[in-house]
Amino acid sequence: MEMVNPTDTAAWRKLMSMQADEGQTDTSSSIVCDDALDLTLDLQRSLISSKGWNALFDLAEETQVLGWRDRMMAGDAINMTENRAVGHMWLRGGERGEVLSELSKMQQFCDKIHQSDKYTDVVNIGIGGSDLGPRFVCDALRHLDRKLNVHFVSNVDAADIEETLQPLNPETTLFVIVSKTFTTQETMMNAALAKAWLGDLSVADHMIAVSTNAGGVQQFGIDPQNMFSFWDWVGGRFSVWSCVGISIALTYGYEVFQEFLDGTKKMDEHFMHTNIHQNMPVLLALAGVWQRNVKDRPAVAVLPYAQNLDLLPDYLQQLDMESNGKSVDRNGHKITDYQTGPIIFGQAGTNGQHSFYQWLHQGTQVIPCEFIRVEASAYDKKHHTVLNIHQESQAEALTIGQDDQSNPHRHYDGMRPSVAIVMNDLSPHAVGQLMALYEHKIFTQGILWNVNSFDQFGVELGKKLASQKAV
Amino acid sequence: MEMVNPTDTAAWRKLMSMQADEGQTDTSSSIVCDDALDLTLDLQRSLISSKGWNALFDLAEETQVLGWRDRMMAGDAINMTENRAVGHMWLRGGERGEVLSELSKMQQFCDKIHQSDKYTDVVNIGIGGSDLGPRFVCDALRHLDRKLNVHFVSNVDAADIEETLQPLNPETTLFVIVSKTFTTQETMMNAALAKAWLGDLSVADHMIAVSTNAGGVQQFGIDPQNMFSFWDWVGGRFSVWSCVGISIALTYGYEVFQEFLDGTKKMDEHFMHTNIHQNMPVLLALAGVWQRNVKDRPAVAVLPYAQNLDLLPDYLQQLDMESNGKSVDRNGHKITDYQTGPIIFGQAGTNGQHSFYQWLHQGTQVIPCEFIRVEASAYDKKHHTVLNIHQESQAEALTIGQDDQSNPHRHYDGMRPSVAIVMNDLSPHAVGQLMALYEHKIFTQGILWNVNSFDQFGVELGKKLASQKAV
Repeated sequence: MEMVNPTDTAAWRKLMSMQADEGQTDTSSSIVCDDALDLTLDLQRSLISSKGWNALFDLAEETQVLGWRDRMMAGDAINMTENRAVGHMWLRGGERGEVLSELSKMQQFCDKIHQSDKYTDVVNIGIGGSDLGPRFVCDALRHLDRKLNVHFVSNVDAADIEETLQPLNPETTLFVIVSKTFTTQETMMNAALAKAWLGDLSVADHMIAVSTNAGGVQQFGIDPQNMFSFWDWVGGRFSVWSCVGISIALTYGYEVFQEFLDGTKKMDEHFMHTNIHQNMPVLLALAGVWQRNVKDRPAVAVLPYAQNLDLLPDYLQQLDMESNGKSVDRNGHKITDYQTGPIIFGQAGTNGQHSFYQWLHQGTQVIPCEFIRVEASAYDKKHHTVLNIHQESQAEALTIGQDDQSNPHRHYDGMRPSVAIVMNDLSPHAVGQLMALYEHKIFTQGILWNVNSFDQFGVELGKKLASQKAV
Repeated sequence: MEMVNPTDTAAWRKLMSMQADEGQTDTSSSIVCDDALDLTLDLQRSLISSKGWNALFDLAEETQVLGWRDRMMAGDAINMTENRAVGHMWLRGGERGEVLSELSKMQQFCDKIHQSDKYTDVVNIGIGGSDLGPRFVCDALRHLDRKLNVHFVSNVDAADIEETLQPLNPETTLFVIVSKTFTTQETMMNAALAKAWLGDLSVADHMIAVSTNAGGVQQFGIDPQNMFSFWDWVGGRFSVWSCVGISIALTYGYEVFQEFLDGTKKMDEHFMHTNIHQNMPVLLALAGVWQRNVKDRPAVAVLPYAQNLDLLPDYLQQLDMESNGKSVDRNGHKITDYQTGPIIFGQAGTNGQHSFYQWLHQGTQVIPCEFIRVEASAYDKKHHTVLNIHQESQAEALTIGQDDQSNPHRHYDGMRPSVAIVMNDLSPHAVGQLMALYEHKIFTQGILWNVNSFDQFGVELGKKLASQKAV
């Protein structure tokens, strides 16, 4: 299957002729639903004309998005720079023996921990993909009953671990050390401090590992029975669906983790089996390409109206910017004539309204917003109504603007685009679907931009220089 | 004094002729010190040529940055759209009677609280400037001894307050309600939930206010004796230096707050009395204009290598984007031919290295980085050494790049600019200076771009639409 640069397609030339278009989205068909899912996608304010959408669909066809999707699912080595398959969808498929057996081991371990009264707190030590995924999910599910308190330590700045451990009791604390190679510098240094903090307590009783390096884990003093594994076809930023997510199961119970997997699978099925005109990840990806390439907009603001989704922008910074922040195409050629992945930033609403929204409404640059709205809340209902009124009002203000001739400082241009992802609630199902929606969006954009979304060579040079300076 | 658009200056025309320049900064004079300060500014990697710097200094002259600075300090109504003076520097000056008397009242109150054993926890309820400033400072100073535990609630999503209060005991909790008008919707709704949570306990004993609305405060049940005030010449995002910062004093003691003010004042003095060639805020502002306008770079990555400064990007999103996210100049004309304030985003290092740094090194767009480095740490020294090695290595990797002909996916262009703010430590002095450095940078850029940095009309339309939808 060819790896096509977007600039070599007929659709791209059509799109580039539309740079001055200020489309009004045809609202009749712009709310996308799938009854199996716990969320919908609202494109009413995307400000893309029908003509624009048609050219975008052509681009998806010409770059063979669905063909590459199928190759990913079939296990082809679509991560070609590392010659690896890309299998995060298999983690929630419930079909592969190796996955099921590792999950079953994890379930037994979690049940054992919950049946004992020995532990009150779990501390996840990991960084990047070994931190952001479980941290985001644990936060998103805070409305659920907790079996243990959970904490996350990532930074090599010891402020992180020292401040986290200060109120905890070593006797009732369980550490989860997450590092594929068990050599990640930050994680191993923090694990060493944690070990010292345990004093005379047994490492085997108070530490477990998620890793593939059995030798390293054992040498550290962790019982190999308490090592949970994953596979080279799972990239760090896609790994929360594996045993890397064990902190979620330890916090909320294994059954919650299973619900999270099951819910996510429904988004995979939607992505696998829906035509491109109704395929949410594809639509979200195409809307992003319109903004990034047709309209030359450098960033996306991710604006979840839910305090428990406050870490979504951080999570997506890794998922998106590490995946598509590339400037060499899959054929090994330098990309010189189009932009790839945008800047991702944002914050929970309504907080952001009292911060950077001034810029969104009246700055000299227009950037698209991705609102996340949650229909049912586990918290105070009156507050929730007000929260959602604000979400709607902001989206409206961005698009309609306000003409004020008498005071130019109160003038709003309007025509600032947004999309809304509307979640039924923050159930494990819905949270999983939100995350998979973004995973598949990012995959799709990788194909559209012809970059390999699954390597991250850009992080190596800094590491190399650091190791040369090591004391 | 004239309000000059940058595009009307001779310097601007010179600058625009340098768009293709890839300068090498003359390193001999590019580390800026002031013995009175606890930080230095390192411009060695800014990649601005001497010719570029000269044109930037000309721009500062032609737009009369120093003249406007003096007018701000003199109390002229430089916030002309609201006809107000801009007085946040007076808050730390130690000279104005009204400020001193309010601080003295605050000191007595904090001392009284600390002498009693009644309270264990303080909960700050506010949003925007009534939240981000005290929250950031409380986090930055976590290495100091705490007299009370501190929590912050801002979002109207009740998840925020319900999850925060869940582990607390009403009998030992003190709420600080921060709202200038005492009508801010989010804050008042959260204050009402807090009041309900107190049950039969006396509001007067468990709540205080920072506000200018004495009637509203009293009606709510708060003892007017426990209301702390500020002034219309203090904007919300510049207000942490007033009694809005009371949560800092309650957490760490009033003397720490006083040190914070005293340290900050030294940066004010530096800004007021240093020529533009050695004036840190002016230099940082000019380097930003080079990146934003000469090089057309839409964002700035703020990268503090200190876990306790993790909230700096959030704090600066408000301070910078709300101040300079404007597209009407001070004369009331629409800005059509240049960009104003950039997007601000970032995260603490080394965490970010495992997230979006891939994009910084190998994305299709170049954006400047602002590293913050701290020389002395209160935490584990070996970790700290590694942390700082990483900071240095990342800055180096961004500028030197790496040519890899054999594997284009491992090629780094390099020539990606950065600056470094090097703090001696995270003392209250140094933290105050860091914040004032950014305040004055933003003020300077406001003058350079000819926008009023002190209003925020862009937040009104959304509020108006929300109030029309109110239930």
